[in-house]
Amino acid sequence: MMTAVPYKIYLSEKELPKNWYNLKAVMKELPPPPLHPATLKPCTEDDLKPVFCTKLVQQEMNTKDKYIEIPQGLMDFYKMIRPSPLIRAYNLENMLDTPAEIYYKFEGTNTSGSHKLNSAAAQVYYAKEQGITRLTTETGAGQWGTALAMACAYYGIDLTVYMVKISSQQKPYRKAVIETYGGKVVPSPSDTTEAGRKILADMPGTGGSLGCAISEAIEMALKTENCRYVLGSVLDHVLLHQSIIGEETKVACEKYGIVPDVIIGCMGGGSNFGGLIAPFMGDRIAGKNNIRFIGIEPASCPSLTRGKYAYDFGDTGKTTPLMKMYTLGSGFIPSPSHAGGLRYHGMRPILSKLSDDGYLEAATVTQTKAFEAATTFARCEGILPAPESSHALYAAIDEAKKCKEAGEKKTIIFGLSGTGYFDLSAYMSYNDGSMKDYIPTDEELEKGFATLPKVE
Amino acid sequence: MMTAVPYKIYLSEKELPKNWYNLKAVMKELPPPPLHPATLKPCTEDDLKPVFCTKLVQQEMNTKDKYIEIPQGLMDFYKMIRPSPLIRAYNLENMLDTPAEIYYKFEGTNTSGSHKLNSAAAQVYYAKEQGITRLTTETGAGQWGTALAMACAYYGIDLTVYMVKISSQQKPYRKAVIETYGGKVVPSPSDTTEAGRKILADMPGTGGSLGCAISEAIEMALKTENCRYVLGSVLDHVLLHQSIIGEETKVACEKYGIVPDVIIGCMGGGSNFGGLIAPFMGDRIAGKNNIRFIGIEPASCPSLTRGKYAYDFGDTGKTTPLMKMYTLGSGFIPSPSHAGGLRYHGMRPILSKLSDDGYLEAATVTQTKAFEAATTFARCEGILPAPESSHALYAAIDEAKKCKEAGEKKTIIFGLSGTGYFDLSAYMSYNDGSMKDYIPTDEELEKGFATLPKVE
Repeated sequence: MMTAVPYKIYLSEKELPKNWYNLKAVMKELPPPPLHPATLKPCTEDDLKPVFCTKLVQQEMNTKDKYIEIPQGLMDFYKMIRPSPLIRAYNLENMLDTPAEIYYKFEGTNTSGSHKLNSAAAQVYYAKEQGITRLTTETGAGQWGTALAMACAYYGIDLTVYMVKISSQQKPYRKAVIETYGGKVVPSPSDTTEAGRKILADMPGTGGSLGCAISEAIEMALKTENCRYVLGSVLDHVLLHQSIIGEETKVACEKYGIVPDVIIGCMGGGSNFGGLIAPFMGDRIAGKNNIRFIGIEPASCPSLTRGKYAYDFGDTGKTTPLMKMYTLGSGFIPSPSHAGGLRYHGMRPILSKLSDDGYLEAATVTQTKAFEAATTFARCEGILPAPESSHALYAAIDEAKKCKEAGEKKTIIFGLSGTGYFDLSAYMSYNDGSMKDYIPTDEELEKGFATLPKVE
Repeated sequence: MMTAVPYKIYLSEKELPKNWYNLKAVMKELPPPPLHPATLKPCTEDDLKPVFCTKLVQQEMNTKDKYIEIPQGLMDFYKMIRPSPLIRAYNLENMLDTPAEIYYKFEGTNTSGSHKLNSAAAQVYYAKEQGITRLTTETGAGQWGTALAMACAYYGIDLTVYMVKISSQQKPYRKAVIETYGGKVVPSPSDTTEAGRKILADMPGTGGSLGCAISEAIEMALKTENCRYVLGSVLDHVLLHQSIIGEETKVACEKYGIVPDVIIGCMGGGSNFGGLIAPFMGDRIAGKNNIRFIGIEPASCPSLTRGKYAYDFGDTGKTTPLMKMYTLGSGFIPSPSHAGGLRYHGMRPILSKLSDDGYLEAATVTQTKAFEAATTFARCEGILPAPESSHALYAAIDEAKKCKEAGEKKTIIFGLSGTGYFDLSAYMSYNDGSMKDYIPTDEELEKGFATLPKVE
């Protein structure tokens, strides 16, 4: 007999996955390769090695190995921060009076508050292994910077975080956490780089941007001895590391006989959602299941739902390799939204390709609907969700309501990628009714598309 | 063969304790009874029932039942927020290069961020059972208010939180969480009560105090239909509910063959520490172990280490029953400290009695030492501790260092009662070197003792 499903499923240490799941090794067709922005030829490992750690570049290029072993020195870190719980939303089900079974994989129990730490730890581990002593990165809202600072403190690596200046002023507590973990925070634009000095000269009063912070972090990495740059999203090796989320979920499902019909996640660059679905998607591609995978985007930044499938830059500064992806154009500036982690103009190439091939659905949710769902959820499930995660939550509730109407008993899993602890000003604006929704007009999208590079 | 101890021990749902542990039923001598402040006669159930829920009053008075069953409707809530993990501090041990084994019970994984939720849920459950529809309480830093709001949202009870005015201004995010959970926050002093109006008239610009907020909350409960007041500390039923911490710890220890030599916790009113040690202390009293129990106080508010064992009021407003406890005098105003949860003039009667009978040791730590320990811990164990918990953490590290000097392999357990997410301004002042320590002089203590009531 199958054991009854408890509220919270925590895998034991022995049950933790020992490998990451490499989606590219099981896809029937691979995404077109990234192109060097100068030559427009496919990027080689050598193109990337001055910027990124060597092992990460190799993982980025790996299309052969379905499983990639998690090294022991990293497993020790993972044992400290994982497993994350898979939680049966019994209370939400009762409140909705739905025949559906709802589960969520909650990545917000670690101190950084989100899934970001899974890749931060891996990237810092490989830097350490390579003898790298310093890392640089950028951070907007601060989740990635916090995660990286935690990993750098553990492995003894110096860290400089270029934090978008306006964020560093508006989120002093995020800065405080990074500093408590020994990271150095530099408000960007700064006078520590050419890129920063140029922007400061051109726009003295600017609050900065993620694009500018990226440029500064890469420049500093290139000009500093024994230093590399690390990135928390978009790249394939980041998705690889995040597959630990999906693998834990799969082990838990198998242990308790849970057979998902639908898996839902929020999508910015798609790391969290891609990681959650990876092993399930692999089985789907192999014809072993028929799960619906639904990625939820903010209505204010609908790359997969309203974007074009085209080669584009990964950053607004147009310095990264060109990637074939669903994109709104690197020049598309999403309207302000409290789900900062979802404000990205493109969708990572792997998910774009899977979407193009019909394996993935996408939908949008406005932020007020997301916060409405978040408040309902917080009150009955006891967890305050991050604004990003609340987009997925809304869709899961919506799906469960449809089950009620249809009298169908589906099993729904969604990714709750983080806590809302550091987003309380957003909750305040929802509570006092001042939160607004933004949906770009077709005209605004056209302006973004006009910034797409010409690639034959 | 005993299973190797994993980094994190999560009990399964089936292993969760089904009863609370009532220390008063196993103590060889009970603490002297609380006295009615007007008559100076021992309080009766009838004295307390207008203010507190009936079941809680009965638990408060219960000296007979060693185990008190956790009702099913509350277990459902506990399954949602518990178990908390018992974590082996492998990384801290390595860093200290100590032969000691260090474990910590981490109560900060729930959204309220601390152990407070264990009693909040219980109190709200019993209110609901009794048909009470509204509750009032006070909150200072906001942890208790948050916990109570979460429980009230779950059980569908209206909540009014009198929040010390200066806190509600300095901690808008705490207010935001309470409101997200549907609680009503009233900055105190307010014009909603006689007590508040009087203070506003006498001191128009005051930022309020916990004493004043308590008075307002009790007055509102007494004059509102179907309403009761709830308190998050000091009372015996709160300690009873917190015994779930110690019971889970004990089950985990037995499962993995962990035999503690020392158990350490921070003490404000003593709920968290009392809960952690309850079942172990019961065994100690019965001669079944020889564990050292060490309670850590802030040097700025040393009730057990430098106070007098005397009858005193529980509140600065001198409205509560008189309790025999180690106290600095209800008129003692502790200097500002970032460990707001430890700024209480007295130590709960049960722990005072156990200390007087020689079962309990106490020591003090300054806040800069606590934050130094917190920073070390955050960097190697990945968790950012609450300032309060960091006092216990400092003592645990100190104990482990002594083990290294002596070459002794002791097993140390300490209580990590909460996260530091909401205390980042404190970390900022530690990081920038502006944090100060306060140790009251003997003269300052004498002034506090002068406020002790005369009881024959």
